[in-house]
Amino acid sequence: MLFSVIKRGVFQDSISLMLLTRRISTLEGVDRVSIMMGTPANKGIFASTGFLTPEIDDAGPTDLCIALEAASAAMIDPVVEAVDAFLADQSVQREQADYAHARTFYGAHNQLPQANLALISVSGNHAAREARRALSQGLNAFIFSDNVSVRQERELKAYAHRRGLLVMGPDCGTGALCGLPLAFCNVTMAGAIGIVGASGTGTQAVMAGVDALGEGISHAIGIGGRDLSPEVGGISALDAIDLLARDPATEVIVFLSKLPAASVRERVVAALEAQPKPAVALFMGERAAPLRRHLHFAGTLEDAARQAVACLRARRQQVLRAGLRPAQQRIRGLFCGGTLASEAAGVLARGLGVPLAGTHDEGVMFDAQGHSVIDLGDDAYTVGRAHPMIDPSLRSDMLRQAALDPDTAVVLFDVVLGCGAHEDPAAMAVAAMEDARARREPDAGRVIFVASVCGTRQDPQDLARQIAALRAAHIWVETSNSEAAAVALQLASLSRGALPLASDTDAPSLLARRPAVINVGLRAFADDLWRCGAAVAHVDWVPPAGDDAVLLRALDSLN
Amino acid sequence: MLFSVIKRGVFQDSISLMLLTRRISTLEGVDRVSIMMGTPANKGIFASTGFLTPEIDDAGPTDLCIALEAASAAMIDPVVEAVDAFLADQSVQREQADYAHARTFYGAHNQLPQANLALISVSGNHAAREARRALSQGLNAFIFSDNVSVRQERELKAYAHRRGLLVMGPDCGTGALCGLPLAFCNVTMAGAIGIVGASGTGTQAVMAGVDALGEGISHAIGIGGRDLSPEVGGISALDAIDLLARDPATEVIVFLSKLPAASVRERVVAALEAQPKPAVALFMGERAAPLRRHLHFAGTLEDAARQAVACLRARRQQVLRAGLRPAQQRIRGLFCGGTLASEAAGVLARGLGVPLAGTHDEGVMFDAQGHSVIDLGDDAYTVGRAHPMIDPSLRSDMLRQAALDPDTAVVLFDVVLGCGAHEDPAAMAVAAMEDARARREPDAGRVIFVASVCGTRQDPQDLARQIAALRAAHIWVETSNSEAAAVALQLASLSRGALPLASDTDAPSLLARRPAVINVGLRAFADDLWRCGAAVAHVDWVPPAGDDAVLLRALDSLN
Repeated sequence: MLFSVIKRGVFQDSISLMLLTRRISTLEGVDRVSIMMGTPANKGIFASTGFLTPEIDDAGPTDLCIALEAASAAMIDPVVEAVDAFLADQSVQREQADYAHARTFYGAHNQLPQANLALISVSGNHAAREARRALSQGLNAFIFSDNVSVRQERELKAYAHRRGLLVMGPDCGTGALCGLPLAFCNVTMAGAIGIVGASGTGTQAVMAGVDALGEGISHAIGIGGRDLSPEVGGISALDAIDLLARDPATEVIVFLSKLPAASVRERVVAALEAQPKPAVALFMGERAAPLRRHLHFAGTLEDAARQAVACLRARRQQVLRAGLRPAQQRIRGLFCGGTLASEAAGVLARGLGVPLAGTHDEGVMFDAQGHSVIDLGDDAYTVGRAHPMIDPSLRSDMLRQAALDPDTAVVLFDVVLGCGAHEDPAAMAVAAMEDARARREPDAGRVIFVASVCGTRQDPQDLARQIAALRAAHIWVETSNSEAAAVALQLASLSRGALPLASDTDAPSLLARRPAVINVGLRAFADDLWRCGAAVAHVDWVPPAGDDAVLLRALDSLN
Repeated sequence: MLFSVIKRGVFQDSISLMLLTRRISTLEGVDRVSIMMGTPANKGIFASTGFLTPEIDDAGPTDLCIALEAASAAMIDPVVEAVDAFLADQSVQREQADYAHARTFYGAHNQLPQANLALISVSGNHAAREARRALSQGLNAFIFSDNVSVRQERELKAYAHRRGLLVMGPDCGTGALCGLPLAFCNVTMAGAIGIVGASGTGTQAVMAGVDALGEGISHAIGIGGRDLSPEVGGISALDAIDLLARDPATEVIVFLSKLPAASVRERVVAALEAQPKPAVALFMGERAAPLRRHLHFAGTLEDAARQAVACLRARRQQVLRAGLRPAQQRIRGLFCGGTLASEAAGVLARGLGVPLAGTHDEGVMFDAQGHSVIDLGDDAYTVGRAHPMIDPSLRSDMLRQAALDPDTAVVLFDVVLGCGAHEDPAAMAVAAMEDARARREPDAGRVIFVASVCGTRQDPQDLARQIAALRAAHIWVETSNSEAAAVALQLASLSRGALPLASDTDAPSLLARRPAVINVGLRAFADDLWRCGAAVAHVDWVPPAGDDAVLLRALDSLN
């Protein structure tokens, strides 16, 4: 049998409705349940799914409508009790939340006058109005809502652009500004890769890919899936590229969208080429095109993350190389692991085109063109002392000596973790390196340290912790030993070149600090922001003008 | 001024000596310190470094000799106190250790009669005798010690081989049997890749590489760097390959060594080709050769790990494909992320050579040749309900339906983590999958589930935990969405073939369970084994016959 219960004047957002539906559907005796607000559109859904009752037909848009199929009317009381308990819980949670809330946007803005971003997730027919209000008050807008018309989107974006503001969305699923996640967003390390994404999960996949490769995100700016349509013309895309180009924290820009109209694609490509930073563009469904100036094209989301990280590392290598003096020419490899030393020697020999010696007196695995690789686990170094994997003190002495030598360009070494090994080999290497840095002649240039770390997350020394300690000391870290040797070779032997352009300007204001947010719509978003430590004020939004289409149009025409 | 202190009859192993040296060298007023046992060889080192005193010259091999440079004789008392405190600490630690210890090998063996492995790390001139004794008692031997002659190595290995035992080493740095780390060893996941390594840090690098790629190690068998010399002829290499070939836990074999003599190399290659499992060989310094039967050749340590994982995954795909019925032809993609759906559709379209449709009614991103990809975040599915990334219940229903369909071969889906998303999307998918598996007609074949997971370690749902939950439910997991789609295509469209040979024999006894170990030498190794939960008995070893070379030879001739 079909029953319905109406709770008047208790507007609930879609996540609350989902949670309430889950709770009611677990009650014994309830066969099916449908819970929505009594808007005209929802009444249509109630009707088409066979749930419409006269009571629901009479309900208004701020009335909570519960339709249920149950064996008998005896179920109604337990359902009403459960609904009341849910609403009571919610009031308590609302009172306990430590962030500000208000009944109107202006009320919230009064409580958070420094707000520079509105996060809008009300239903689509109200989103443009809320966004326009926020923009008119000088806030940028992140519009999660869908069902905003293209005409409205174009008007909002043109208006924002004129005022120097940014509209992210509509239908913008993902964003992160200064590490603050907005809507659906992965939690990544802070870093130097900035993303402009016309695609929510695409942006998430690139963020996750960059994080997995050991790098971090400066900002991820969502622009909404239709920004690159001919009607909108990429207004937000171009503004976002400009923001990241001017942001000193961003060193590499990733742009991603579905395949746009050709004219808009060209405008975006031209903007990415015109700005000075290396960039990676992914137009989904298009095969990767060849490099254009400093603009790389990716074929998949994974490829976009990989290329962005490669660009960032190439740029870092350029910075390191630019710090070398002409006298610094030598690679000095100092290894605890014999096979690692042997492999590194092989990489240098192939790279420099010299043969490998067949004998390795005193652990010297390579010695040519001024470069050397020594295995400190060789018998020559272990007489009367423990293996350097247990006791790295001799290796530390030799790292220090090598780093003080004026003709050393790169010191290459291994950090081997695991049972039996020293309890903190990274700290030993860092101490030696810092000592050498402090004692090195000021005009002798900086020595570059390149380490390969052999270990796992489960090792007693913890791979991630060891890598972090080395990186914190500005040591170049690879987990592949052959790759570390290849990097050493690139750093020491490529043309030195000039320092890449650094933007020493101030960050654009939207990217200068974590945004302060007025949240209009899903309460869960305010909770997430608050949990992330953001300044947030929530608007206890209810549809205005009884959600009546005619009245709303009249209201909009007054704005 | 030079002083010396002798402590008679307190034999210390090299790690204890290192720890004691560290402690004494931090005492204020001590300029330099050298601490060794009074063996003839060590007296030579004392002499060559200017530390030899008449007292040290008189000391015997079980006497602890402390030589120090200090400003005045007033330093002697504090040093003696510190040495006594160190030795007292050590006695306490020895008493507190929960594992058995004895003064002789036989005493230890009585206490641990099930011992099947001796871990030997005494100084080189004693190692062969200790190994021979262990082998004669039916134990396998892991010889960490170096400075064992090639002749002794050959004799030990030939003797062991005749008795069906294995000698790992001498100079064997790394091993892991059934997950028990021996000597220097990374802690990896348990898994199906077995390693035979004539190189310690090489084995560690491959173990770490396999772990980083998300797979695990069955066993890592060290054989010592000289096993492949013409004199030894690869006795342990061939025995170890045979062990892994017969071990049901090992599905892929990795063999690595420095470049051996050509004749020995051919014998190893022939053995790897003759056994039935896919294998990867790395001869360091040799360029990777082309595939021979199921034997792949790697060029670097990283490459060896990568190829081994690729072999393992190919083998698993073969097993999955063999479980499909002829009627199972379709790939059913069900996505929460629109861009992920679009990318997967692109991969299928390119792979199948069909054009992509320009329109996507009802979120259908791909529909050709029976395969389909649906974006459940499309408006058609979100009217009156939250986005499937928040509420995956509709997606779960559709996963279930797709998996019940008799013509479904592969169900492809995404798991998107991060702020805003469902708190445990893997559990939702697993529940749907298990429900479908339980309800599927018994003769309809098994459906293969392929998931791509988009997330980071810092996400609230924790990437590693989500992946582990999916893998535990036998879902194929990739972190790259395009790779997941490519895998789905391979699984559904390649020729089905037969099940790869499974060895349903019992494991060889050395590999059947974690070894029980008699530790002869470095006490730290016994501590490590005990910490890992192994059955271990330690021999409080001191050099026999006063370490006198003539007496030792006489002793050896009696054995």
